[in-house]
Amino acid sequence: MNDIVEKLQELFGLKCILSQHEAAHRPASVWMSGAALHCKALARPKSTDELAEIMRICHEYAQPVVPHGGLTGVAGGAKVSGDEIAITLERMNEIEEIDVVNKTVTVQAGVILQDLQQKIADQGFLFPLDLGAKGSCMIGGNIATNAGGLQALRYGVMRQLVLGLEVVLADGTIISSMNKMMKNNAGYDLKQLFIGSEGTLGIITKAVLRIEDAPQSRNTALVCLESFQDAVQFLHEAKKSLASLLTTYEIIWQDYYQLMTSAPSPYSPPLPQNAPFYVLIEALGQNQEADTALFEGLLESCFEREIITDAALAKSQQELDWFWGIREQVELIFQVHHPVFLFDVSLPINTMESYVEEIKGKLQNRFEQVACYAFGHMGDGNLHLFVSTDENHADTRHQVEEIVLTPLAAIGGSITAEHGVGLEKKMWLHLSRSQEEITLMKTLKTALDPKGILNRGKILA
Amino acid sequence: MNDIVEKLQELFGLKCILSQHEAAHRPASVWMSGAALHCKALARPKSTDELAEIMRICHEYAQPVVPHGGLTGVAGGAKVSGDEIAITLERMNEIEEIDVVNKTVTVQAGVILQDLQQKIADQGFLFPLDLGAKGSCMIGGNIATNAGGLQALRYGVMRQLVLGLEVVLADGTIISSMNKMMKNNAGYDLKQLFIGSEGTLGIITKAVLRIEDAPQSRNTALVCLESFQDAVQFLHEAKKSLASLLTTYEIIWQDYYQLMTSAPSPYSPPLPQNAPFYVLIEALGQNQEADTALFEGLLESCFEREIITDAALAKSQQELDWFWGIREQVELIFQVHHPVFLFDVSLPINTMESYVEEIKGKLQNRFEQVACYAFGHMGDGNLHLFVSTDENHADTRHQVEEIVLTPLAAIGGSITAEHGVGLEKKMWLHLSRSQEEITLMKTLKTALDPKGILNRGKILA
Repeated sequence: MNDIVEKLQELFGLKCILSQHEAAHRPASVWMSGAALHCKALARPKSTDELAEIMRICHEYAQPVVPHGGLTGVAGGAKVSGDEIAITLERMNEIEEIDVVNKTVTVQAGVILQDLQQKIADQGFLFPLDLGAKGSCMIGGNIATNAGGLQALRYGVMRQLVLGLEVVLADGTIISSMNKMMKNNAGYDLKQLFIGSEGTLGIITKAVLRIEDAPQSRNTALVCLESFQDAVQFLHEAKKSLASLLTTYEIIWQDYYQLMTSAPSPYSPPLPQNAPFYVLIEALGQNQEADTALFEGLLESCFEREIITDAALAKSQQELDWFWGIREQVELIFQVHHPVFLFDVSLPINTMESYVEEIKGKLQNRFEQVACYAFGHMGDGNLHLFVSTDENHADTRHQVEEIVLTPLAAIGGSITAEHGVGLEKKMWLHLSRSQEEITLMKTLKTALDPKGILNRGKILA
Repeated sequence: MNDIVEKLQELFGLKCILSQHEAAHRPASVWMSGAALHCKALARPKSTDELAEIMRICHEYAQPVVPHGGLTGVAGGAKVSGDEIAITLERMNEIEEIDVVNKTVTVQAGVILQDLQQKIADQGFLFPLDLGAKGSCMIGGNIATNAGGLQALRYGVMRQLVLGLEVVLADGTIISSMNKMMKNNAGYDLKQLFIGSEGTLGIITKAVLRIEDAPQSRNTALVCLESFQDAVQFLHEAKKSLASLLTTYEIIWQDYYQLMTSAPSPYSPPLPQNAPFYVLIEALGQNQEADTALFEGLLESCFEREIITDAALAKSQQELDWFWGIREQVELIFQVHHPVFLFDVSLPINTMESYVEEIKGKLQNRFEQVACYAFGHMGDGNLHLFVSTDENHADTRHQVEEIVLTPLAAIGGSITAEHGVGLEKKMWLHLSRSQEEITLMKTLKTALDPKGILNRGKILA
């Protein structure tokens, strides 16, 4: 009955091709769902050539496949159904080369982000992509979703960190663009097609990534602000005085701060809970003494000018973990609320306050009880919103999405800054992209995957 | 006889559609050729809609077109033949918006780079793309060729400066992706397709570009070095101590320095002519006093450690022009040599010296008399080579290209770092890109331009 699965098992063995039954021992491909994986089979290739051969057969059989990384996505981009073969890159997890002269690292797609960070740090360098899921997300997925995270303000998003890429196309063709050059205009920059295309145009197998000098100084503070306008001004002052040392600028609205510093959260409040806004600011540099003077000078000057009203400096690893935990441990929201709908929007910084006011008002009008926590990468023009309502009907999510996402069209925002479209946001893609753009995306999809077997139905309807 | 030209003239007028005869009053589309433009007609649309309409008609007639910017390219990417319609964006030259809050500028493709730099400087900001042709090259061409230039080390190449793009496709469809966000993962990042594709996939009409805070300090020096290895070490030290202030790091081999500081060059030598290597180094920052101390500290420390053997600091605008002129006024080569073949290669920094040695040796073996001037953006891994021989037969260029470009394949280099492929380098594309990559490029070309009317025969054979 399962012709193709039997054929794949015959060719690649039972260790490589897990049956539907065996795959069901693994977790589902949806973050925090708690369910078991349900797929036609799970392929675990050990090499690019093996994956290419698997894809050639899947292409021949017009067999839909779903690429899997660390399964930490929140947009349903890795969701798999019973007639699809999931392909995990988990066995392709070698760091092939760390080139400290040209400052590049060559990695296989299945390397876990935190493992890469650690290996690069051991060599005295920095791999600057950093995000909450680093302990389980994989580099291939980070590239396929063009991950952003906590240091994009300084080092750029994943797209800026990728120099070269190896990809397997739908028909099994291997595209090796393992460029190590900073500048290369020899023909189309093909890697750009695959970065951020969520596995719909090809399966990423390897990459050449940039690494940076390891910072020698770290200055981190949590500050209180009386208004959003002050947060805009503080960002402006921080950019002016810290320049490229400014690595992180995270805004936190009051209600999220209160949630994260009250029971059942393990975190006590480092600063009073009554400020309208909080900012977590971090600067990385090369000279601790000089950089600390600059950082503290910024805080003092802004305090004197009443741009900030209070500040706590992290003076130990324990305090760093504490301050960062308040920003990062979003799982705590799920202990208090259910269901929770996640958003990840981009918008001009000067429209953020009115946008959040507008959607909070609309949510309060529509639902009896609603929480809308806003926080995120203000320095990148990117906010995360976690919305919970007292209702949980079939169309509750849709209603919340409509309220949160619709206003973005008028202000030139994006429905997703870093999480991607996956399945969950595709019906809203038209808010951020024109019909002509979506048609062109479909032209590309058809050109590269004419049988439509790569991550079917993701991004594009 | 010229059905389509008459039709276009009827629809858009004689000011918009110049006949073959009228177009011949203009210079040809090849840098320094001195010839007249020879094309079927020259279209000068005033708006995106007008260009879209022109393209719809050209598409209907399967009429090949060649997009024209400032005609400063050196790879033949704008070369036009008598049966092609050239399309210049020169009348679409407005700066539509400078947004100092979100630090973006919205420009039409025909804006001259230097005009944009000036307008942005007038507002107290910096548009960081900078290159020799800035007085005549256009932003649309800078994007279409993914220009690099003199400050890419710090600010990135054009690709990193483009946030949004508007493009007219072969069939006249307008793709408006005028994104202003730093982060946007709502579907495929279509603009990446067009950046660096040299007008073969679409005609760029508008862009949203990043602008930067204007630097408040500038430190520039020309230094002497005893060996290429010292230049590698000096770059390493400069990155470590200047970090992100390091904006320019240009290497100059001895023979080019001697040429540029001897008659008929107007420049006298700021430093003795007998050093094997020279580096022009520049740092831009926010604090003149502190940055000068840092910069001079770097030079002193490297002098004491014998990494550099001499240095001249530019202390006035006149000295800046002098030092920069020695690096930049490449036209002087043409006063001394003819013909001159230009190259623009990328390669790992640690292979540069042996590569230049190798090709100089091979050129000397092949030709009785030969000059091979090497200099360029060492910090970006990018060298320019100007080769002149005593021969000028039909196949001389080919023989020189073979010697210069062939070794790049083995060292993972690129046949073009920033100039692009155009017509001149396309037969060598296989040295830098695999057959699978070239096939995928052709798949994209066919998908976007099925009639093959956009910049026919450029990049791809």
